[in-house]
Amino acid sequence: MSLHNLHNKVSDLVWINGEPVSAIAVTNRGLLYGDGLFETILVIAGKLSMENLHWDRMSVDAFRLGIDIDIEQMKRETHQFLHAADAEDVVLKVMLTRGSGGRGYNPSGCINPCRILSLHPLPSYPSWLPNKGIVARLCNLRLGYSCLAGVKHLNRLEQVLARNEWSDPQCYEGLLMDYEGFVIEGTMTNLFLVDHDGLLLTPKLDNSGVAGVCRQYILEQAGAWGLSVQERRISLTEFTAAKEVFVCNSVNGVWPVAACGTSRWPVGVVTCTVRDRVVDVLNA
Amino acid sequence: MSLHNLHNKVSDLVWINGEPVSAIAVTNRGLLYGDGLFETILVIAGKLSMENLHWDRMSVDAFRLGIDIDIEQMKRETHQFLHAADAEDVVLKVMLTRGSGGRGYNPSGCINPCRILSLHPLPSYPSWLPNKGIVARLCNLRLGYSCLAGVKHLNRLEQVLARNEWSDPQCYEGLLMDYEGFVIEGTMTNLFLVDHDGLLLTPKLDNSGVAGVCRQYILEQAGAWGLSVQERRISLTEFTAAKEVFVCNSVNGVWPVAACGTSRWPVGVVTCTVRDRVVDVLNA
Repeated sequence: MSLHNLHNKVSDLVWINGEPVSAIAVTNRGLLYGDGLFETILVIAGKLSMENLHWDRMSVDAFRLGIDIDIEQMKRETHQFLHAADAEDVVLKVMLTRGSGGRGYNPSGCINPCRILSLHPLPSYPSWLPNKGIVARLCNLRLGYSCLAGVKHLNRLEQVLARNEWSDPQCYEGLLMDYEGFVIEGTMTNLFLVDHDGLLLTPKLDNSGVAGVCRQYILEQAGAWGLSVQERRISLTEFTAAKEVFVCNSVNGVWPVAACGTSRWPVGVVTCTVRDRVVDVLNA
Repeated sequence: MSLHNLHNKVSDLVWINGEPVSAIAVTNRGLLYGDGLFETILVIAGKLSMENLHWDRMSVDAFRLGIDIDIEQMKRETHQFLHAADAEDVVLKVMLTRGSGGRGYNPSGCINPCRILSLHPLPSYPSWLPNKGIVARLCNLRLGYSCLAGVKHLNRLEQVLARNEWSDPQCYEGLLMDYEGFVIEGTMTNLFLVDHDGLLLTPKLDNSGVAGVCRQYILEQAGAWGLSVQERRISLTEFTAAKEVFVCNSVNGVWPVAACGTSRWPVGVVTCTVRDRVVDVLNA
C-alpha cells in the first residue's frame, strides 16, 4: 500500500482485540486513568524494526503495571494485522490497556486487557535533519520523579504540555530537565552526549523519563561499535559543555543536535557512527 | 430511577458530546495520552452536590491544560443528561478530553474537546465509617512532583498502582507521601489533621496531589464554622502525632481515620464538626 493510499485509509486501519473496530468503551481504563502502555514501531517493507526490543519492553512494562499479557499472541496478532492491511512503510502503534473493570482506581478483577493496533503514515521531516542536525530548545516544564520512570505508559501529559511550549516549526525537539536540574530526555526522544574523552553518555532514567527502544539498542550495541557508554546523571553544565549531542527514537533514528539555546555542537564522528548504525537496523 | 434499575441500565447512561453513545475513537487524546480532566459528582435527589465548586475546578484545570471549553454549555448539557436519565441518587462522572487531533504529543490544531457524561451507582460503604472511622494504610508508592499538581487530570497511574498495593477489604484508604516524605493525600481522598492546638491542617498541593472539591469546600467554610485552617507541608512525624485525622472527598464526605499502621486517633470534635457540615451540603 502506498503512503498516499494510507493517508486516505488510515481511519480504517485499527484493530481492537483482533477485530476491525476503531472505538473503545468509555469504561476502558486506558481512557479513565491512562492505565496502559504503548509502542510506536517503524515498519519498513512490511517488517517491524527493532521488533524484539519493542516486545521485550512491552513485556517488562506490562509486568510493572501488573497487566497480564500473552506477548506471543500479541506478536501473532500484530503480524496478522500488518498482513491484512498490506502495510509496507508505515508507523505501527501498539497500545495495551488494562481493559474495563475494577472498582475506581482499584484494578482488582480487571483481567481482560485490551489490545489496540493502528497504522499511521511515516512522519515527514526534511531529509537534511540527520546530517546537519536539529535546533532544539530547553523546555520550561520539569519532569517529576515517578515510580513509573522508564515505562512507556499512557500518562503522557508532561510530554503534551512540554510539546505545547513552542510552535516554531524550525525547532524539532524540546529537551527536558527534572526538578533537580538534570537533563533527562526530549519530548519524543532520548538524549545522548559525547564528552571530550569520546565517551558516550545518556541520562539515567531511574527517577523519570521513558526508556526508549532506540536508546536501548545503542546501549546494547555501543561496545560492538567500539564505543564506551555510560548511563548516569547529567547536569545542564555538562550538557552544554559536551563535544557532541544527539537525540534518538525508534521511528526517526538519530538526529544530531546542532543547537539548543545559545549552545552549539558540531555533528561529530561518534554521532555519525551511531546514526549510521541505527539507520542500518531501522531499514534492515 | 431506583439504584437497582440503575445497575442494570448503567451501560446505557453515557452521553458523548450530547449524543447517547458510549464509545470513543481510539484517536481520542484522552486515551492516547490521558489528555483531559474529570469530575466525580454526587447527585442526590437529582441535584448536583457542590456543583459550582466542581465547575469552577474544571474551568481552572481546563485552562491549565490549555483546553478551551464553554463551561456554561457543559452545565446545560449535564442538566439535560440528568433529566433525560431521570437520575435521582447517583454518581455523575464528567470527563473532558482534548478530543482527537494534533500531531503526536503536539496538541496544536486540536480544537474540538470531547465531553463524556456517565452515571454510576452510589458506592456502598458500611454506614458506621463516618462515625467510627476507617483503618487506612501508608502506601509504599511515593507521589512525584508534577507541573500539574492539583489538577484532576486523566493521568492517574499513581493512584491505580497505589490502590493496587492492598486487597484487605477492612482497609478503606491508602495514604501517600511524596519523595521527600511529606504526607500528601489518599488515593481517592484529601487529608486533614487537627493539631493539639485545635488547628485544622491540610497538605499544600503545589508539588503533587489532587486539589479535591470537598477539601476546597472545607478550606472555604472552616472560618464560618469557627475553625482555623492552614495549608502547609506536613511531615510523617506531624501526621502520626496529630490529635485527629480525617480524609474526605465529594462523594463520600468525611471519614475519620481511626488507625494507620501503628498510629491510632480518636474521632474528635473538630472532625465531627467538619463531617456533619459536609454531610449537610452533600445532601442539601
